[in-house]
Amino acid sequence: MTSSARFEPTLADIEDAARQIAGLAVRTPLLESPVLNARLGGRLLIKAEPMQRTGSFKFRGAYNRISRLDDQQKKAGVVTYSSGNHAQGVAAAAQILGIPAVILMPADAPAIKVRNTRSYGAEVIHFDRYTENREAIGQKVCAERGAVLVPPYEDPYIIAGQGTVGLEIVEQAAAAKASLDAVLVNCGGGGLIAGTSTALKGKLPNVPVYAVEPQGFDDTMRSLKSGRRESNDPAARSICDALLAPEPGELTFSINRKTLAGGFAVSDDEARAAMATAFNDLKLVVEPGGAVSLAAVLSGKFPIKGRTVAVVCSGGNVDPDVFIAALKA
Amino acid sequence: MTSSARFEPTLADIEDAARQIAGLAVRTPLLESPVLNARLGGRLLIKAEPMQRTGSFKFRGAYNRISRLDDQQKKAGVVTYSSGNHAQGVAAAAQILGIPAVILMPADAPAIKVRNTRSYGAEVIHFDRYTENREAIGQKVCAERGAVLVPPYEDPYIIAGQGTVGLEIVEQAAAAKASLDAVLVNCGGGGLIAGTSTALKGKLPNVPVYAVEPQGFDDTMRSLKSGRRESNDPAARSICDALLAPEPGELTFSINRKTLAGGFAVSDDEARAAMATAFNDLKLVVEPGGAVSLAAVLSGKFPIKGRTVAVVCSGGNVDPDVFIAALKA
Repeated sequence: MTSSARFEPTLADIEDAARQIAGLAVRTPLLESPVLNARLGGRLLIKAEPMQRTGSFKFRGAYNRISRLDDQQKKAGVVTYSSGNHAQGVAAAAQILGIPAVILMPADAPAIKVRNTRSYGAEVIHFDRYTENREAIGQKVCAERGAVLVPPYEDPYIIAGQGTVGLEIVEQAAAAKASLDAVLVNCGGGGLIAGTSTALKGKLPNVPVYAVEPQGFDDTMRSLKSGRRESNDPAARSICDALLAPEPGELTFSINRKTLAGGFAVSDDEARAAMATAFNDLKLVVEPGGAVSLAAVLSGKFPIKGRTVAVVCSGGNVDPDVFIAALKA
Repeated sequence: MTSSARFEPTLADIEDAARQIAGLAVRTPLLESPVLNARLGGRLLIKAEPMQRTGSFKFRGAYNRISRLDDQQKKAGVVTYSSGNHAQGVAAAAQILGIPAVILMPADAPAIKVRNTRSYGAEVIHFDRYTENREAIGQKVCAERGAVLVPPYEDPYIIAGQGTVGLEIVEQAAAAKASLDAVLVNCGGGGLIAGTSTALKGKLPNVPVYAVEPQGFDDTMRSLKSGRRESNDPAARSICDALLAPEPGELTFSINRKTLAGGFAVSDDEARAAMATAFNDLKLVVEPGGAVSLAAVLSGKFPIKGRTVAVVCSGGNVDPDVFIAALKA
């Protein structure tokens, strides 16, 4: 496999990824709460990726990508940059495969994500999220060590791995006798939703898939409207640390512009309220960025009355202080 | 069905209960964390009953019992006494069946449990956990209203309903290619473990089942040793509000003395630490009394090195303040 190969993964690539990660990735549950359903007047299915290995969906793509390196590449190791969840996914996949991993993490990444990344045996290097160029730092480290860069989303094997979330939603919804009317997916760089929407389009072509982003980081929603990749204001801030990519990826947006039906943006307060609801009614720990799709439904921005809708809760790696603040809000 | 019928439920009764609750009770996931497994040196499977309807296993038994009342009984309604989880189970089951429900709850029950019980349309009457006799109050209300008392555990249909947890553990462990070496179950009055151990004995007769209780409320552990029902010191206190029964039930102990291999007791601090681990590594919200089996494993009281062990996390109805205290401990 060529590390620089770029193509849009197909349903077959996602099914291949599902075989590649089977037995290592967790087949996370598709949850449902009768209390929430009654409150919303519809049927809400929640894909619980906080229960994935490493606490977010990122392990799926990381393992699918890293496990396909050739022997020489494996020896030199891997490098990545990440706010935390991709870091843990790469570190855990590399550890399973016995490959050295260097992770560039923003200096303000949640402590739990830094600690967990180190616990998988990876080397962590910090950078400033707002003033330094993480891609440039990553390429420099790669050049020095001969290592392979594992990007967070601009890679067909990463996207195909994340797409297994979509495959599982289709299978688990069918097992629950749920006929999906729509699927909402959290969107940062767009890898999860590119893979998930590709799986959905392949299996259930008539079910619309929507992106949900934090307010101030709604680049994909605006890009879908304008037809070209729009950037976020560098001054924007959000507690949704997992979803702060500056603009859609080139590869991910080339997919998402064809597969997505539109987008929604939610506020930090709406994300916190969704975290509290997940605590009270689902007993699920969700991080701020992991809660935005759920927040779009709970806030009424995406009403589900009379409909059956799946949302992806994409991760649960949240520091206790941030979680406590959400419970107290 | 006679409301006073007392018999020891069999595997067939539990399989019948599984059919009765199918589609209404949640088939909760059997979780597994590679990080926890690596830390413990064994394979730990966690039955996630916080994700059950009403946030604990109690809905299983309550629905199995109340749905079998005859039409005249259903009209008069049901009464129960409960620290909170059984209250919610009864209230939710009664609401589904369109039956009036009166719930006697201790004055110090967690606010979330009182609020949720009322949200299912039940009438709540408070009593003092340490100075008043809840059985006597329950019988008085029954006499006044002609209602049927739904006991928390001293009833074969309740026990059979809770036993569906055991059936699912057997099926889900097999699906996960896990060969169980032992099962640990939280124990208050003993209904959950009586049903679960009966299911285990029927399906996997060589797998030992152990009771786990809070320190100061280890009546079942001591009763198993002495061979007769032992009481707890009325002065004992614990944060595990779901597990504070004064002594083993007569019916539940007649079962448990034959099905259980022994017991363990854990401290409040060990329960809190298990709640924090469930937050960090499982992303699961567990209440103090729901965490004692997990605590027995994590504390090393029940070592699982080289073994495959299932624990039941029995509930997740915990007030934010108590949860926050566990995260900060």
